[in-house]
Order: sequence, then C-alpha cells, then structure tokens
Amino acid sequence: MKNFSYFAPTEIIFGWGCLKEIGGLAARYGKRALVVTGHSSPAGAALYGRVREYLANAGVEAAHFDGVIPNPTTGVVSAGADMARRSGAELVIGLGGGSSMDTAKAIAVEASHPGSAWDYLHYTSGPTEKTLPIIAVGTTAGTGSQATPCAVITNSAKKDKSAIWHKNIFPKLALVDPELTVSMPKDVSAQTGFDAFCHNFEAYLSVNSNPLTDTLALDALGIIIRALPEVLADGGSREARSQMAWADTVGGMVIASAGVTLPHGLGMQIGGHCPQVTHGQSLAVFYPEFTRYTWSRAKEKFAALGRIFNPALIAEDDAAAAEKSCEAMDGFLKKIGLWIDFKSLKVTKDEIRAIADCGQVLGDYKNNPRLASIDEMYEMLLRCYERN
Amino acid sequence: MKNFSYFAPTEIIFGWGCLKEIGGLAARYGKRALVVTGHSSPAGAALYGRVREYLANAGVEAAHFDGVIPNPTTGVVSAGADMARRSGAELVIGLGGGSSMDTAKAIAVEASHPGSAWDYLHYTSGPTEKTLPIIAVGTTAGTGSQATPCAVITNSAKKDKSAIWHKNIFPKLALVDPELTVSMPKDVSAQTGFDAFCHNFEAYLSVNSNPLTDTLALDALGIIIRALPEVLADGGSREARSQMAWADTVGGMVIASAGVTLPHGLGMQIGGHCPQVTHGQSLAVFYPEFTRYTWSRAKEKFAALGRIFNPALIAEDDAAAAEKSCEAMDGFLKKIGLWIDFKSLKVTKDEIRAIADCGQVLGDYKNNPRLASIDEMYEMLLRCYERN
Repeated sequence: MKNFSYFAPTEIIFGWGCLKEIGGLAARYGKRALVVTGHSSPAGAALYGRVREYLANAGVEAAHFDGVIPNPTTGVVSAGADMARRSGAELVIGLGGGSSMDTAKAIAVEASHPGSAWDYLHYTSGPTEKTLPIIAVGTTAGTGSQATPCAVITNSAKKDKSAIWHKNIFPKLALVDPELTVSMPKDVSAQTGFDAFCHNFEAYLSVNSNPLTDTLALDALGIIIRALPEVLADGGSREARSQMAWADTVGGMVIASAGVTLPHGLGMQIGGHCPQVTHGQSLAVFYPEFTRYTWSRAKEKFAALGRIFNPALIAEDDAAAAEKSCEAMDGFLKKIGLWIDFKSLKVTKDEIRAIADCGQVLGDYKNNPRLASIDEMYEMLLRCYERN
Repeated sequence: MKNFSYFAPTEIIFGWGCLKEIGGLAARYGKRALVVTGHSSPAGAALYGRVREYLANAGVEAAHFDGVIPNPTTGVVSAGADMARRSGAELVIGLGGGSSMDTAKAIAVEASHPGSAWDYLHYTSGPTEKTLPIIAVGTTAGTGSQATPCAVITNSAKKDKSAIWHKNIFPKLALVDPELTVSMPKDVSAQTGFDAFCHNFEAYLSVNSNPLTDTLALDALGIIIRALPEVLADGGSREARSQMAWADTVGGMVIASAGVTLPHGLGMQIGGHCPQVTHGQSLAVFYPEFTRYTWSRAKEKFAALGRIFNPALIAEDDAAAAEKSCEAMDGFLKKIGLWIDFKSLKVTKDEIRAIADCGQVLGDYKNNPRLASIDEMYEMLLRCYERN
C-alpha cells in the first residue's frame, strides 16, 4: 500500500426533509447567521422563508444575502462579507447550488480576515481558524461543495478564475436534503449529476487516490450510473433523488483528498473562456476524448468502470474491459442527453486554441494517470468540435 | 434511503514509516506535548525515544507519562492529567494500543476541565472544545481508537467500566504507521485483528448503519479475511500488516457513526468480570452463538459476509448464503486460532450468569438486528462454555 492522507471533517446530516433540523444545528455556532443564496425566484424565496423560520424557532436571527450569481465574483463576495460584518453574523449558511455554497465559504473567509477572499487562494497559506463556521445546504446534486475545502471565485478585474482550497473552509455541517433537489429542471439534473459522476471518476483515477477514496468513489459511480437515468425519467422519484444526493456528497468527500484530473482542469478553462457553457457541459463535451486518451494508463480502473456499465465484462481481461469502457461511457452520455460538441455549444476553434493554451494553469491535469501536453490537449479538444 | 448522520473528522496520515512526520504534525498544536504510553519495555522505550527525537527536531518538547495499564483506571488518568498540567502540555499524544490511546483521550479531557474524566461519560453533556488536541499513534491493529470518539475507562472505586463518547475526543490526527505493528506477537495480532473484524461487521449489521459505513465496512471485512491469516503466517509481511492497519482504521471510522452491537456490549461485561480474558477473546468466544442468533434477521448482510468467505455463494439466495456464513465464520475463527470456549478461558458458569445479568447495562445490544433478552444472552453464553 502506498502512503496517503485522508481528511473529510464535515459532519453530514442526510435525509429527506432534514432541512427542518437546520435551526438547532445552526444554533451550535451562534445566534446570528448570514444566509447566502442566489437572486430569489418565487421558489427560492419560499425556501429561504422556510430556513428563516426554522432558524428563528431555534433563536437564530437571519440576515439574507441574495446576490449570488453563476461564477461568483470577488465583488459579490465582498458585498456578502460586508453584510456579514454589518449584521454581526457568527456563521454563514450557503443555500443553493455550488455557486451559493462556494460564495458562502468565501464570505466566511473575507468577513473574518483582513483583505479580500482573493488574498487566500490555494497557493497562499490560506485562511485561518478564524473563518466563520459554514453550513452548506445544497439544492442541486452535483457540485459536492457541501463536503469540500474548495470555493471557486472569479476576479472580474483580473479576468481570472481561481479557488480557495483550504481545510478551514470545509463546511462544519452539510445538510443533504434530497427533497430540495426535486424541483431541478431535467437539464440541470443531467449536468449537475454528470458533474458528480466526474468528481467520483476523476478522484478514482487520480494519482492521489487512496484505498478509502477508491472504495467510496467506485460505489458512488455504481449509484450514479443507475440513479441518474431514473432521475431524468422521473424527477419526482424520492429514491433516485436520494441516491443522487448521496453520490454527489461522496464525490465531494473523495475529491477533498484525491482531487480531480484533466477534465476538471480543462473544464474550468472552458467555463472561464465561454460562460455560455455550463460546468457539466464543459465536462461532457470532453469526456469521450479524455477516456480514449487515458484508459491505457489505468487499465484496472477503467475496467472497473466498464464492468459497472456492463457486468458481462468480468469475463474479459482488464485491457479489453478498459477499452470497452470508453464506448460504454459514450452510451451513458447519450442516455443522459449530454452527447454534445463544441460547435453546438457555440465555442469557436480560436477559443479552443485559447482554452488549450491555459490547460496547465491549474494543477489538476497532473493528477491524471497520463500527463497531457498543451499540444495534446489542443488536439483532443479540437476533436470535440463536431460529433455525430 | 433512510435518514442518517456521518461524522469522522480525524485527519488520517497513513503509511509505512510515517511516524517520522509526527514532529511537524504535532507542532501544529503547540510546543509542549504529553506522550502517553504503557510502562516501557525495551522496545517501547526505543519507540518513545524516536518520538521524542522527532518532536524535538520540530521544536516540540515532550513530557512522558508511561503509566498506562490494560483497562486503564480513573487513577491512571488523573496521574496523567496531573502531569499534563504540570508540564504545561498543549497537546496529548497516545502511543501504543487501545489503552494508551484511550488514556490519552481521557487525560486530554481531565487536564482541561474541572473534576475528573469520569464526570464526562457518554450519558453526560460531555467534554467541551477546551479538550486538549489529541494525536493517536497505534501500535496494534485492532482497537480503531485512533479514529473514534470513544475512551473506555474503569472506575476502581466504583468497580465500574464505562466510556466517554463525544465528538470532542476524536483525535485531531491519527498517524497510522503499519511498521509499528510488526513486532506484535502472533496471539496479539490475532486478537486485535479479530477486534477490527468485529468493529467492521457489527457496524455493518448495526441498525444505525448507513450507506457510507456499509460500503467501507464491507470493503474492510474483505481485507481482514484475506490479510489476517497472512499476518499470522508471516508477521513481517509489509503488505499484510499495512492492509490490517488500514482495515483497523476503517473499523474505527465506521463505529464512530454506526456503533457496535451485541458482541461488543457483552464483551465489555466479559472483560469487566474476568480480567484474564482479553477483549479479542471475549468477542471470539461469543461469535459462533451471535451469528446463529442473528443471521435470520439480517439475511442480506450475512449473505454478503458469506460471499466474501466463499464467492461461490453468489449462486445461492440470501437466506442460504446467510445461514452458511455462520459455518464460514467458525472456520475463520479456527484459522486464526480463536476457536475458544469459556472453560479454557477459566470463566465459570456463575460468572457467565453474572455477565448475562449485566448484558443490557450498555446500549450496544440495541443496535443488533435481533434484540436479545437477558435470558437469551444467558442461554447463548452458556452454550459457549465448552466447544469441540
């Protein structure tokens, strides 16, 4: 066995309807909470209303920052941190998708430290234990943010997208209530669900994987391959939504120790250059090339994936099963409606060149079992321009 | 899916030789550490010497409390807490088997709180966040204590054995260095290894199990069934010792959320009444009756165990595989030299009566899929008196 470390300190409260426990849980950390959400739709406003009431019943006063946007910026974080300070918030609750949870984390840092959240990015010594306690409540099932030490933020002035990655921004608590995910539209369910797939598969493949992340990730992949199509067929399925919420949480736990690999690294660049492409789309468009580029350097693990898709592959050796997993992967993308190409996403070949050129800015690609050069990234991305 | 919670906040540093990292890791928490060990054998003294040197190299001064005994008492804990206070310890390092790690946890509580560690038992509101940070370094592979919120202590004056069970005594760090387990004698390897088996199997069976503990525990059971006989055949096997150290750690993580069941509850009473019986022996002597009493109420899970022992049972239905798992379990106990009875352990029938009468003092039995009465416990225990 190789040497490794594992750390996933977030306390997980899981279950249909468990949102109602948020009051008592929040009261552990203080009497004044900042609740961080996106700009409220009627459904969002109703959800915030429930949270405010649960908090009030437990003696916790809520201030509401509803300024979260997709790809949250340093400006948004600063506005939230300002509100946190003015309201005397003792804890921060992120309520929504990955953007809301990531913004909550960054606000928890900026409200308790000098300077801005941007001063505490992954390559710095990071935020201290003074970071306000964070409670994460996800309403999608894909980002895993409820269980990670990561907050992705965009610096509008510097036109740069980066992340805080530090143990002090692990949420103290993740309330995982699958009921909150039922209202997700089908396309969002598919895209966020595929993100959860990628977290688990990339953590499993990562050169920093370990026996614990391997066991959990492989189990979660089996869940997603079964449950995601069920969710897309019947968005109201309590069991399938629960399974997806769980597999998403596991995805966060495993990337916290093992990290992600090439697709996530490039996906960040695709999203940065072409904001019309969602994170889930940026992964899906690249996966068919990624699997074919990588399988031969991780035969045992691709074979394990292939055998989840098709148990009959147990009869074949790892190399054969691994190669066939690429086709099975294509089939899964088609099944969940994410067999897409750059052309349909309105990404130009010039943009593909620019994306590839930034392909090694983030270190994620180093976790891949096969190390890609910028040229190889460009070639792979270009082959994703148009598909049948 | 049912509702559940999961919390395992201990940071795990795993790997052959990782003990040498203890200095830098301890320095995170302070400049003065109390190192808690048993009364030093020459090997123990050499190990402590290494730790002291690693700590000194990182600027951490060590005080040494070497008063740990098997079944550590409140008196031992108080003596250690006194030394912690006098030496100004900012953290406590437990170095040894379960007794050393548990004593370190209790000392970390008593040194930072009014009264004695006994005032913070599982049924109280427990110790606060003032508890000194704990680093656990195991030298056996069985107790799982490096990853649990549990410290078992004995009150000599009250003739009572109980436990602190609280999130504030989770070790901050577990250094799991399998190299430290190589010197374990064969019988200790078997007994502690079987304890690790029981942690995983009982957490898996527990009515408080969850999808995460199920996945991890089942994986660890597969590891132990393969690696424990290898360890007993070749105590120097680096790979087998590593596998056991890992499965032991998983056992701690899963009981932290799912708990243990009937055998551990009764095992505590067996050990309390008959100190000559080790914890591992107290589990092994009862398991043949436990499996036969319980399998029919947890067919799917016993079947999963049976199929690890014998993959050919995949061809049979759960009920048949579950029933056959009992015989396979017997075979495993014989293989690891733990096919034992009370008579050979010098436990009398009167003592068995007294053990059964205390069988519901601890709540562990409530986690079992089949709830045993005192009379049923007595009957089962009596059938363990003499075996062929």
